[in-house]
Parts: sequence; C-alpha cells; structure tokens
Amino acid sequence: METFIQPKILKGFRDFLPQDEILRSDLIEKLTKTFRSYGFVPIDTPVLEYTEILLRKSNGETEKQMFRFEDNGGRDVAMRFDLTVPFARFTAQHKEELYFPFKRYHISKVWRGEKPQVGRYREFVQCDFDTVGSDSAVSDFETLSLMKAALSAIGVDEIKIHVNHRGIFNRFLKKLGLSEKSEDILRAVDKIAKVGEEKVSAELEEITGNADSSAKIIDYIKPLSSFEETLSHIEELAGGEDEDSKRMKTIFSMMKAAGIEGTYMLDPAITRGLDYYTGIVYETFLEKLPSIGSVCSGGRYDNLAGLYMKEKLPGVGSSIGLDRLIAGLSELGITNAKGSYLDVEIFNTDENLNVQYQEVAAKLRKEGISVEVFPDTVKINKQYSVTDKKQIPWGIMLSSNSETANTITLKNLKTREIFESISIEDAASKIKD
Amino acid sequence: METFIQPKILKGFRDFLPQDEILRSDLIEKLTKTFRSYGFVPIDTPVLEYTEILLRKSNGETEKQMFRFEDNGGRDVAMRFDLTVPFARFTAQHKEELYFPFKRYHISKVWRGEKPQVGRYREFVQCDFDTVGSDSAVSDFETLSLMKAALSAIGVDEIKIHVNHRGIFNRFLKKLGLSEKSEDILRAVDKIAKVGEEKVSAELEEITGNADSSAKIIDYIKPLSSFEETLSHIEELAGGEDEDSKRMKTIFSMMKAAGIEGTYMLDPAITRGLDYYTGIVYETFLEKLPSIGSVCSGGRYDNLAGLYMKEKLPGVGSSIGLDRLIAGLSELGITNAKGSYLDVEIFNTDENLNVQYQEVAAKLRKEGISVEVFPDTVKINKQYSVTDKKQIPWGIMLSSNSETANTITLKNLKTREIFESISIEDAASKIKD
Repeated sequence: METFIQPKILKGFRDFLPQDEILRSDLIEKLTKTFRSYGFVPIDTPVLEYTEILLRKSNGETEKQMFRFEDNGGRDVAMRFDLTVPFARFTAQHKEELYFPFKRYHISKVWRGEKPQVGRYREFVQCDFDTVGSDSAVSDFETLSLMKAALSAIGVDEIKIHVNHRGIFNRFLKKLGLSEKSEDILRAVDKIAKVGEEKVSAELEEITGNADSSAKIIDYIKPLSSFEETLSHIEELAGGEDEDSKRMKTIFSMMKAAGIEGTYMLDPAITRGLDYYTGIVYETFLEKLPSIGSVCSGGRYDNLAGLYMKEKLPGVGSSIGLDRLIAGLSELGITNAKGSYLDVEIFNTDENLNVQYQEVAAKLRKEGISVEVFPDTVKINKQYSVTDKKQIPWGIMLSSNSETANTITLKNLKTREIFESISIEDAASKIKD
Repeated sequence: METFIQPKILKGFRDFLPQDEILRSDLIEKLTKTFRSYGFVPIDTPVLEYTEILLRKSNGETEKQMFRFEDNGGRDVAMRFDLTVPFARFTAQHKEELYFPFKRYHISKVWRGEKPQVGRYREFVQCDFDTVGSDSAVSDFETLSLMKAALSAIGVDEIKIHVNHRGIFNRFLKKLGLSEKSEDILRAVDKIAKVGEEKVSAELEEITGNADSSAKIIDYIKPLSSFEETLSHIEELAGGEDEDSKRMKTIFSMMKAAGIEGTYMLDPAITRGLDYYTGIVYETFLEKLPSIGSVCSGGRYDNLAGLYMKEKLPGVGSSIGLDRLIAGLSELGITNAKGSYLDVEIFNTDENLNVQYQEVAAKLRKEGISVEVFPDTVKINKQYSVTDKKQIPWGIMLSSNSETANTITLKNLKTREIFESISIEDAASKIKD
C-alpha cells in the first residue's frame, strides 16, 4: 500500500490562494508605483545574512525570535527579521557605488519566530522606504506626503497621520530635569492610546517621583485643536523656538502648500519607543478602525549604519504594515480582489475545433486582449463554474460547423447579453469598450 | 575606540543595486503581465517548509544542497529549493478550495547551497507557470505559446524552442527492446548538444551493448529539415501513428493557426533528464547565444502531487531561468535599465523656497507626473550628478525672487533646452509629451 505524506505548513506561516495573492499583489503594485513616482528606487538584499551582521542592532527579544542556524559551511547565519538592518549593512558596504541622498524602497518578506496569534505571523511582508544622506525638512515632508499618497493609491483615504518631534520632547524633559529618565518616560507616554491617561499618569508619577512632573508631561502630550496651536503649546513648554520647532513649522507650511494639511495632526504623545529615532516620528491610523493600531510608521534617525562604518548617515523612513493593512481593509469591506486578469474565455465545446480556438485566441492577443481557451471539452456548466471563479467578463463560442474561425458568438458573462455571428474584430472592440 | 563590524554578505548570495534591481523588476513585471494575460493567477507559499515535505521528491544531491535546520520549536525545517515541490504540496492541501484546471504562476526566490561559480548562486529567482488538472493538447500548446510571448515581452525574440515528446521516444525504445534502459539512454541523449554525437554514440553503445542500437538511436534523435518531416520520421521509427504522435500533429496545427510555428523545432534529442516528465518536453535557446543553455524549459507530467494524495493530477509547466536570461541579455547588450522612474527633478537652489518647491511638486503630481525635490540646498553640480545617475529627463528651477510658484524654468536635461518663465501647466504638458 502506498503511503502519503500529509500536506501541511509550519505554524505561523501561510499559503496564499489566488484571490488573496491577487489582492496582495495589487496592493504591492500600487504602493510600488507610488514609491517610484516620488523618486525612490528598488534594491534587494539576501534573505540569509551572517548572524553577527543582523544581531548587533537588536535586543535579546530579537535574538530569541530569529531563524538562526549553522549552514553547511559551518557559518552562523540567520534569516533577516526586518529590512532596516540589511539596508544599513547594504549602504555601508556599497557607499562608494551609491549616490547620496539615496532614496530606496524595499518590499519583501521577513521572518520572526513570534508566538503565532491573530494577525501575527512568522513570515510577513514589510514595505519600507527611506531617504538617507540628507538631514533636510524636504525629506521629512516628502516622507509624510508619500505615506498619504501611497495609502491613497490603494484606496485608503480616511486616515490620520500623527506626527511628533522627538527633539522638542527631549528639550521639554531636559527643562524638567528629567533627561535621564527620558527613555522610560517615552515608553510610558507611547502607551496612552492603548491604556488611557489615568494609567500613564500613574506610571509617570512613579518614574519621575512626583505628581507635578507627571501632570506637566500629561499636559504636554495632549493635542490641542489644531496643528499650529499644539505646536505653539509644546514649543513654549520646551522653552521657546529652536531648530526643531522651526522645522515643524516648515513642514506644516509644506503641508499647506501641497494642500494636504488636513491629513496630519501634531500628536505629542507619539514617541515610537525605539531610541534609534532622533527627529520627527509618526504613526498612521485608519479613521474608521483606529483600534488595529498604526498601519504606517517611522521617523528620522541620525545614524543609519553606525555599526558598520564611521561616517554618520542621517535619514528618514517609513514602513507600511501590509498584513495589518489588509486585515483592516478586509474588516472595512474595501478589499476588492479579482479572480483573474482575463478578459475572455473561449469555451471548449468541440474537440475538433481546438485549432480554430487557438486561431481566435491568437487574433485577440494581437489586440492586447487577455484570453484563454478552456483546456478540456467538458460540460459547459463545469466551464462556467471556472469562469465564475475567475470572474471573467466575456465568453466566446464557436459553432461546431464553423470551418473557419472568422465569425464567433460573444457573450457578456455578467449581463448574459449575446452577440451572434460577429467578426473577431467586432468582438475585440466590444471587449475593449 | 569604537569598533565596526565589517559589512559583508554570504558567498553565493547577492545584493542588487538600484540599476540591477530596476532591470530585474522590469523583466519580472513584463513576465507577470504576460502570464496573467494567458489566464494564469498568482499564489504564494512559505519560504520555510517541513523538511519531510520538501525531501520526498528529491535525490541525495538536493538533500546535500538544502538550507536545513532545526527551528526554535525543534522542528526539522528547510528553505525551499524549487517552486515545484511546494506547489505540489499546495495543490494537495488546498484541492477542495481550488478549481481545476488550475493555472498558476509563481515568481520567487529559492535556495540551494551549490558550490558558487560563474552564473550559479545560492539564492536565485525562479519564474514558474503550470496548468494542472488537464491532460489536453490545448494546455500543451498554450504553454509553448506563452513561453514565446513571455520572452517576446522582455524583448527576446530571436529564440528557438526545441520540443519533443517523451511518449514517442519511449515507444521507440520499447520497439528496440530497450525499455529497461530508457532512463540511462535519455540521460545520454540529453547531453548531445554539450558533448557531441561521437561521445553520445559511444556511450549509447556501452549502455545498449551493441553498435546497431546506438546507430538507430542516433538516427532517431537527429532533427530533419522541418517539424513535420521530423515528426513523420520519429513516428515511423516508433511504429506508426498513435495518440502521442497525433497530439504532436495537433500541437503543430495550433502553432500554424496562431502563426508562430517558425519559433519551434521538433528536436528528438531533447529529453529533460527527470523521470517526472511523461509527455511533451521543451527547452529554449537564444539564437545568438545558444551556449548559455536553455533559458526556459519544462514539460508535461502525469502526477504532480502523488506524494501527498491519491488523486492523480496531470499537468504541464515551464520555468524561466531569470538569472541565466539576464546574463544572456547583458552579454547580448540588450538590457536597458533605467536609473529611476522619475520624470522631473526640482532643483534646490534656495532654502527659502522649500515650501514653494513642494507646491510645484504637488501640482505636478496631480497631473500624474513623477517628481522629487532635491532634499538639500547644495551646489548645483552635486545635484546634477544625482539627476545624471537617476537618468531624470527634466529639471525645474525657481528663481529666488519668485514670491509664488506660478512660473518656473523648465530644462530638458538631455538636450539642455531651456523654457523660461513658463506656467506649471505648460511645463506639465511639455513633460507629458
């Protein structure tokens, strides 16, 4: 007796069936197109790297989550867990071949052995774009503008991008004499959307050791009614105008010049826990589904590749969480995936016409029409069930007595309208309309 | 003193710099578009699978080449070494959710720990497409037709696709009483293009034990002057017409009906070493560079997922060797990669105009134009050196006294033609021409 091996995949990994993969491809293609239109270019790096390259930037959590092993040559290697560390290694390694400012996008899979749970996978796609080698407000704004444009390109217009500046916050904390506790404070503040003001306030009191400091921080992080008001407020609390607050004003002027200021709010509670960021930071929420968390986040850093080279490379970047976004779109009912990319199915009703079918298909393809011939001469209902699944708008039939393939029957598979005995040229123009 | 970690990648792995990645993306996008236009849909499978799933179909060579390890949960896992085995597992696992005939394409990376050498990498991209669940000549032909269309889409028109049928060859060997030695014979014959007739003849004599059989096989595998002549010849040698030779006649008629018969030759020496194939088999050679070997190969099999389920799933598929193809294109000088996807650079000559630059950029983007603002106010020559690298056709400048951004200076960066004080609308229409 033959034995079969049970087909199965690893926990936390996923197969993508056509409908899901068509949706994902569609989103990636639209994002790609938008990244490109802003001057970003693609790069690629290996999935496997030396573990020491990947590990240096991370904490113990990352190390535990890595897919790490010894390869056949005895090398300590690991699968990348993000696209940032490989990008840092890449820029340091190729700095002589690149030009700066350098703007790259990278959309690819990364792996983390996290405990699988709803919406968390061990294999997932990151969509990153970064501008490195410039410290300018132009790049800050362009990044914010591209975040909006990219989400808009995939049909997500009802968003709010929360922006903040780590430098202003740090100056404020310094003024309060709390610089040394800033990491803890930033981490506490970052949780306010999740746990609420009361809990953050209590935690801040514990960190700072007094209720007054806690109240001042809570006052600082509350957004007022407009971007400009909030900016004046935090600028004042931090001790007046400086380079950082001037930059925020410039960025806001750029938003107005581009007519997109309504998408952004200044939110002093956004800190992005990582000590990596030094300038603006931002998170993006779906207005109708804020609960799923930020779908696009990032910030400005001052030293991308410091582990690999002496030169400091400042930059600003953002990352779109594609899986979370797809989950959100599907919850909002705004996913709209095709079943295939076909315009026409040529139905196979008579094996003797197989050559004629190909003649018709070839003529339609010359017109730029996407077409397939149903492979087997089987019952028409079986053929319809496939064209339904593939959501094909048009069908073509040849009558069995057609010596040549000059006239055909065209059927609109949605409306069921039928055009009999028309020429291939006429069919082509109907399909293209 | 700070220590830096040397940025480097693993042997046999590659970084792709923008120019190379733009080329590769461009080819993949054109192939994808063509696959889709023939009714193929995308799927995705995990990079990591259970080793027992991947291993069952392979020989010892594959096992040695796999990146295989124990994951943190103690599972024996490996990175996929091709896209066929995961596809077989996928169809068996999801057979109830799929529809048949099922046509899928999959363009993705695979990993093999081969000894690195010129043109051989440990990480490379495969481009596969398969039709499963049909045994029809329609699918055979459609596969052959799509191979030509896909290569044509990426500018490779001077190709010859060598086609053969394993069934006819097997019948011929049976007639000679050599069925039991057919695997060895097929493998010997497969080498004729590489090692020449004399060596194959000697090897065949050794395998079959007599010079007469060897001579008969050599006679069989020699193509005559046309597809039809060769077909008559091998059909006769195999004992007359049967289903297999009839199918080859049908396929040839389809080629003629589609007007593409000139691309194909019947080449009885093509056997594709794998015992997996049962019907037509094919390889594709660049007419100007046959020495690099086949750039697109495949065939018909009768049992895709036999390791994972009882039902037999016949199919036909093909795989494009993207790396080999890129190497070939570059050797022929027909690669033509862009430096970016931008239409326009807005030069940054005055920091005080940063807001105006964004206003112009936003207006151009509304017109569908791809544009970036140079991030820093640096010497114009430094800005030109970046626009050169990015191969941007147009440049825009604002004069420092422009209060508003209503008129601009547009420069054709190739011809150096300059249009002064024109409106943004006029600039947009010139750029779009």
